[in-house]
Amino acid sequence: MASTDSASSASEPASTPAPFTADDYRARMERAAADAAAAGLAGVLVAPGPDMTYLTGYRPSADTERLTLLVVPAAADAGDRPTLVVPALEAGDAEHAPGAPALTLSGWTDADDPYALTAGLLDTGGRFGISDNAWSLHLLALQRTLPATSYRGLSDVLPMLRAVKDARELARVEAAGAAADAAYESILTVRFAGRRESEIAADLASLLLAHGHSQVDFTVVGSGPNGADPHHEAGERVVEHGDMVVLDFGGLKHGYGSDTTRTVHVGEPTAEERRVHDTVREAQQAGFLAVRPGATCQDVDRAARAVIEDAGYGPYFIHRTGHGIGVTTHEPPYMIEGEERPIVPGMCFSIEPGVYLPGRFGVRIEDIVTATETGGRRCNNTPREMAIVE
Amino acid sequence: MASTDSASSASEPASTPAPFTADDYRARMERAAADAAAAGLAGVLVAPGPDMTYLTGYRPSADTERLTLLVVPAAADAGDRPTLVVPALEAGDAEHAPGAPALTLSGWTDADDPYALTAGLLDTGGRFGISDNAWSLHLLALQRTLPATSYRGLSDVLPMLRAVKDARELARVEAAGAAADAAYESILTVRFAGRRESEIAADLASLLLAHGHSQVDFTVVGSGPNGADPHHEAGERVVEHGDMVVLDFGGLKHGYGSDTTRTVHVGEPTAEERRVHDTVREAQQAGFLAVRPGATCQDVDRAARAVIEDAGYGPYFIHRTGHGIGVTTHEPPYMIEGEERPIVPGMCFSIEPGVYLPGRFGVRIEDIVTATETGGRRCNNTPREMAIVE
Repeated sequence: MASTDSASSASEPASTPAPFTADDYRARMERAAADAAAAGLAGVLVAPGPDMTYLTGYRPSADTERLTLLVVPAAADAGDRPTLVVPALEAGDAEHAPGAPALTLSGWTDADDPYALTAGLLDTGGRFGISDNAWSLHLLALQRTLPATSYRGLSDVLPMLRAVKDARELARVEAAGAAADAAYESILTVRFAGRRESEIAADLASLLLAHGHSQVDFTVVGSGPNGADPHHEAGERVVEHGDMVVLDFGGLKHGYGSDTTRTVHVGEPTAEERRVHDTVREAQQAGFLAVRPGATCQDVDRAARAVIEDAGYGPYFIHRTGHGIGVTTHEPPYMIEGEERPIVPGMCFSIEPGVYLPGRFGVRIEDIVTATETGGRRCNNTPREMAIVE
Repeated sequence: MASTDSASSASEPASTPAPFTADDYRARMERAAADAAAAGLAGVLVAPGPDMTYLTGYRPSADTERLTLLVVPAAADAGDRPTLVVPALEAGDAEHAPGAPALTLSGWTDADDPYALTAGLLDTGGRFGISDNAWSLHLLALQRTLPATSYRGLSDVLPMLRAVKDARELARVEAAGAAADAAYESILTVRFAGRRESEIAADLASLLLAHGHSQVDFTVVGSGPNGADPHHEAGERVVEHGDMVVLDFGGLKHGYGSDTTRTVHVGEPTAEERRVHDTVREAQQAGFLAVRPGATCQDVDRAARAVIEDAGYGPYFIHRTGHGIGVTTHEPPYMIEGEERPIVPGMCFSIEPGVYLPGRFGVRIEDIVTATETGGRRCNNTPREMAIVE
């Protein structure tokens, strides 16, 4: 029992969305089966974690050396229902998963070999996609049990498995974004100067929980030179008057992710600080406008990057422009040079260009954006202009 | 940022143990290198998670598709320091890990192929142990990059890597046990009858945190028939007068695990309930007494199981007798039939026999036990007799 769950006592009324049904999960598994067939796979092997949550709603209390694995045969093998291989002791929990009516449970006891059991479900010479985060221990045992079977990382062969959200998923991503926006509006009213980054980060975490998040994944507070490290989280540095401060925070609300960044300034900025901030804001807008029918993921990266390069800050934009979001806060599709997959309506992803001046300061601005039939729709709607805080 | 961490504000004075030093981590990595050599391995590949925490103290904020991997060459390759392959953006964090002075950091950027980088550190034809929980995505990429290299699950080839604790680790396991004991003493004073299992579970979680735990891993409250499912956690069932209630709870304090179970009764038990409880208590004691020089892990299982079988409840003891504990609450060595490894002084593990009468009730009693030169030492010291609660 993670105390993150018990911390979900929201101070705002809970508008819990209708739970996903067995039919929702059945449809997702059928789509996975069809996608697997189209990719030339014999099926998909799904480990506990986001893939299993997405396909079945089942979240085992822990991911352990005891094999829990969902086998989804490719659609070609019609009639084969997905099978969830699960320790017998946990079968009772699995039966209560919302997707359980759409699959067959296969429990194993300590007297059984769960890999032999799984092997019996697999096409011996087939090629299977397996969840990225499936434990190597399990993969190695499957490779030993069925040496003629081959395996590929699911994000390599079916990277878009969870990428396109249906209307009810989109509603959850938007609600998570709105909650993060509310947290941002509130954080602008707290004092920055004279407080540690870690204190402001704790404020952000509390605000996300207060606005209905069940889990806080990250609360970056990068002040002054710390803002120039895009992976800085929040430390003991005391924020000073004159600091630029990167605020990047998110987590899960009703099972779907939020992730937004705004860069604020303590007191009045210099002309250079304003110029960098304007550049990043224009880059973010250019990335957003690049989300339109026919565009690829790399188009978004290129559009945002071009603005920063044109302004002379190209060498200081040192990461990709964005990543997908859904049942996790960080997943495919990636907005990066070389990602030539098309953007499809229903995809949700971040657009978050930044400029990082080593030892001085950084600026990043990030919205979650949903692709529609006609363009992008922002899930974050707080002002992107530089806010002045105290 | 997990709110579990921020919840560690203990109500008791923090007696923080001295942190492990770079020398501690160097010694652990050297032992891993020696063990790897002895096992005929070319080295050990360590993923973020308990193995990396144990060997380096480095805990990346997330385990992702971006490769972070510690390569520990076998001792035969003396002079090769362990190398931590890490995304360049996270190298700054990794540098601050307490074990960092004992290893070489190798950062990679989005322009690099991290698997090629890793391959350059590996013995091409060698056999490597890899952390059980290493992502399949990474293992598959390494297999593609170096097809002549072979891999084995670390718990298969070096199951005892983290099993034998040094004195400072033992002190932490004992402190975690004492904190869990204090939580148990307090829970006996709360009301059981008329409250939901989930409420009592929340009480247990709060008590563990109040007694210095930074993380709660599980709080099982199995009342009446729910107690007969050893993997039941805590649900909406309202505890009634006359219920047997299994309480199994634990987590991490100062980075080391607690895990203890007591089975209490609401009001006076029946003669049968008392008989089952006595049987399990005697089985637990028999398992404890089996921890002595020269014993194997399965001896502990056999000793506990024999008591239950002799009492006629053999078919109702449906799990292994115990598991190791350390930087996780659930790890090798396992006290199970077929595990013929010797018990070595410094090992810490649970002894937790149970009897589960389907649809009626269950009883489990669990202590963490440390193996010493002369026998076992309990880390849990609350009475094992059946407590009567209200």
